[in-house]
Amino acid sequence: MKLITFNYKNNQRIGALVDEEIIDLTQADSKLPNDMVRLLDGGSEALEVVRKVIASCKERIPLADVKLCAPIPRARKFLGLGLSYRSHVEEIKNSGLDIVIPDNQVWFNKQVSCITGPYDPIHMPRVSTAFDYEGEMAVVIGKRCRHVPADKGHEVVAGYMVTNDLSVRDWQMRSPTAMLGKSFDTHGPIGPWITCVDEMDRPENLRVQTWIDGEKRQDGNTDDFIYSIGEMIAELTTVFTLEPGDILATGTPSGIGAASKPQRFLKIGQSVRVEIEGLGHIENRVISEPNNIYGG
Amino acid sequence: MKLITFNYKNNQRIGALVDEEIIDLTQADSKLPNDMVRLLDGGSEALEVVRKVIASCKERIPLADVKLCAPIPRARKFLGLGLSYRSHVEEIKNSGLDIVIPDNQVWFNKQVSCITGPYDPIHMPRVSTAFDYEGEMAVVIGKRCRHVPADKGHEVVAGYMVTNDLSVRDWQMRSPTAMLGKSFDTHGPIGPWITCVDEMDRPENLRVQTWIDGEKRQDGNTDDFIYSIGEMIAELTTVFTLEPGDILATGTPSGIGAASKPQRFLKIGQSVRVEIEGLGHIENRVISEPNNIYGG
Repeated sequence: MKLITFNYKNNQRIGALVDEEIIDLTQADSKLPNDMVRLLDGGSEALEVVRKVIASCKERIPLADVKLCAPIPRARKFLGLGLSYRSHVEEIKNSGLDIVIPDNQVWFNKQVSCITGPYDPIHMPRVSTAFDYEGEMAVVIGKRCRHVPADKGHEVVAGYMVTNDLSVRDWQMRSPTAMLGKSFDTHGPIGPWITCVDEMDRPENLRVQTWIDGEKRQDGNTDDFIYSIGEMIAELTTVFTLEPGDILATGTPSGIGAASKPQRFLKIGQSVRVEIEGLGHIENRVISEPNNIYGG
Repeated sequence: MKLITFNYKNNQRIGALVDEEIIDLTQADSKLPNDMVRLLDGGSEALEVVRKVIASCKERIPLADVKLCAPIPRARKFLGLGLSYRSHVEEIKNSGLDIVIPDNQVWFNKQVSCITGPYDPIHMPRVSTAFDYEGEMAVVIGKRCRHVPADKGHEVVAGYMVTNDLSVRDWQMRSPTAMLGKSFDTHGPIGPWITCVDEMDRPENLRVQTWIDGEKRQDGNTDDFIYSIGEMIAELTTVFTLEPGDILATGTPSGIGAASKPQRFLKIGQSVRVEIEGLGHIENRVISEPNNIYGG
């Protein structure tokens, strides 16, 4: 099952993607919520209803007729893991960057306000040009949980998405907490859909690739993870409750712009594409930051 | 105006506190939302409705008959600022703790899942005993905003609350990002109400005190801030959009347990009271962490 949030005829709805066609879940069953977090809050019971709707609903909308939105436009948490691929740790060690390789999982927050759609533009900040990409697999939590043992982690996962943990390197380094540089508005594109666990049985063996304007920059595989997904969930839930719709960006393989020699950051007009085997791709074009006004 | 979220007859509602009595806003005007974030989303227009309800509504509930909840039980963001009082920076310098005094504002996330009520119990973690208090003033954002100049910061503030930025010191040090140690479930009590800006014109000159079982441990004043509230909002909104109901914990004055000699951490059974001039107090008792189960 592939779950989407989409815009059709100026309405935002949730749907399921079946063979390049969309089933409008909000339309098909009025008892289903029209918001992804609330659908996931409904747990396996709600997903069972979705399965029945998919089996019985004859009305389909062509994928080309809708705009795909971030599958979870308003998540409660959006967390990121640093230095989680062996290949990326190696490139950091060799880069001369002033980054200490930690003994533990290094989690940070991306603010939930930075979430944007899979094909939406992303903003070159007014205050920096050190704008970098990180192609990543995201885990979507499906169950409210705490103190999950590592070997039970899979039981609380709803599915997987593609994300780009866009990072503004000077603002990331401005404070050891990193979160400012990870949280500029639009710097968290997710999508294109949630591939639920029923369609993905090997999340830790997926090719992850990133291209800038068609030039490949990252080519890794989640089999290079230092920590398993179960260990990630165990670490986090030792501390706090994870809830349906929470997003865990699992870190990036080698090939980031900051570790290239010379460094190669994103430029206005470039397109960044992140593709993950079995999960689809997202692609976002860099534009100038709009002229927001305070209180606007 | 003082805004509350409260539980009365097993229903959670929003209300206004007037002279130790409560006006049930959800009851008084069915057009008002029953959720604080949605009320604040309504902006000055919604607050004008609240003002009219307060002026006209005769029905009052005694404060003693209700349970006060966290005024914003489900905020979108809960951010904390480190090392923001001169007195606290001094004690850290003198403490021998391995903490670098930064050149910039050090912001971190408390997960929104750690928010709890002003008089609710707080959990001694299973995995640590280095459980510490930080009495703090919290700023509540009232307006969606970006790129707010420091001298306009006050225009986007809805009001102020008391908070305790409870911190698990070993987990805070586990990673430079700090957020795990700041985010254990229940470690973000807020309240007892939002004192709106119409009743608080000097947020940067308020006494902040913390007691453990009646023994005073912190006695500072927000006039000791290194950064003004406007500068805090300017820094954050350089990077991302702040939204109504977002909570900024503004840091703590000297007197934390970790910097005491010898160190004095919280113990099960102790009560922590944080009081801020003009904003009321919160008081939370330390209990053992309950036996949560995964997926429970």
